[in-house]
Amino acid sequence: MRDSSPPKPIALIAASAPPRTKPSNYPEPFFTRMSRREKRPLGDLFGLKNFGVNLTRLMPGNQSALLHRHSKQDEFVYVLEGEPTLITDQGECTRSPGMCAGFPAQGVAHQLVNRTDRDVVYLEIGDRTAGDEGTYPCDDLQASLGAEGRWIFTHKDGRPY
Amino acid sequence: MRDSSPPKPIALIAASAPPRTKPSNYPEPFFTRMSRREKRPLGDLFGLKNFGVNLTRLMPGNQSALLHRHSKQDEFVYVLEGEPTLITDQGECTRSPGMCAGFPAQGVAHQLVNRTDRDVVYLEIGDRTAGDEGTYPCDDLQASLGAEGRWIFTHKDGRPY
Repeated sequence: MRDSSPPKPIALIAASAPPRTKPSNYPEPFFTRMSRREKRPLGDLFGLKNFGVNLTRLMPGNQSALLHRHSKQDEFVYVLEGEPTLITDQGECTRSPGMCAGFPAQGVAHQLVNRTDRDVVYLEIGDRTAGDEGTYPCDDLQASLGAEGRWIFTHKDGRPY
Repeated sequence: MRDSSPPKPIALIAASAPPRTKPSNYPEPFFTRMSRREKRPLGDLFGLKNFGVNLTRLMPGNQSALLHRHSKQDEFVYVLEGEPTLITDQGECTRSPGMCAGFPAQGVAHQLVNRTDRDVVYLEIGDRTAGDEGTYPCDDLQASLGAEGRWIFTHKDGRPY
């Protein structure tokens, strides 16, 4: 084993995993747009280091993230329940369970939005390549990944929020 | 975009993705044990480079892989259909849809086996850390990841198959 912490589980029911308690550190007015999403980190529970896997629930009216792209990290989502709208800077379309989408680093900007009156549940996977940056084409925001894996958000001219 | 190849899709129905046509290069007698599994690479279709995602179908009597562990790469599986048996070098248990399992590098050796008369379908995710090696506690086999991402299999004493 790579660490000396207590033994990790080998398998579990994903929906029973504890929700993330540390909220996003998106500054306002952006934070509120993502306030009704619930992320259950799954990969961390097993001690995975190279990529993260979340079971994420988007309540009606909420969104996965601001429209964004990563500079170095890839992302993948697989829809388990509900019908999210996938918005990219090339257009938008509705997704159903069994559909998946992938967003390579430096690819299209993207976000999932729940415009229905039912919850949307999906798996999201992202790697942890260091030195990643987030670009937000529609908002006065930019992000860089800090040494501790926490995003540092600023205005586009570099001023802190 | 990171390459000049034709535009990649942004989203698709996972089950409609084309199956992998290149078979595993496990040597016999091991190849046959994995001959009735079907992998649909999903991440590659979107141009993801940092990790792979497969939609994998295990027909009755088949197994995901030999009991193995990785030296550098993490793995994660999420069961979508059926009831695979998860076997590790610490024991075994049956999994159902909605269950997930994670296998950090240098963690427990693991494999999924379909002992039922129905297909098993799951998502499997693995990163692509270079220099990875595969260890097989129950079989006279060892593997190292070649420069082109293809496994090189030998006996445990290094003789080629």
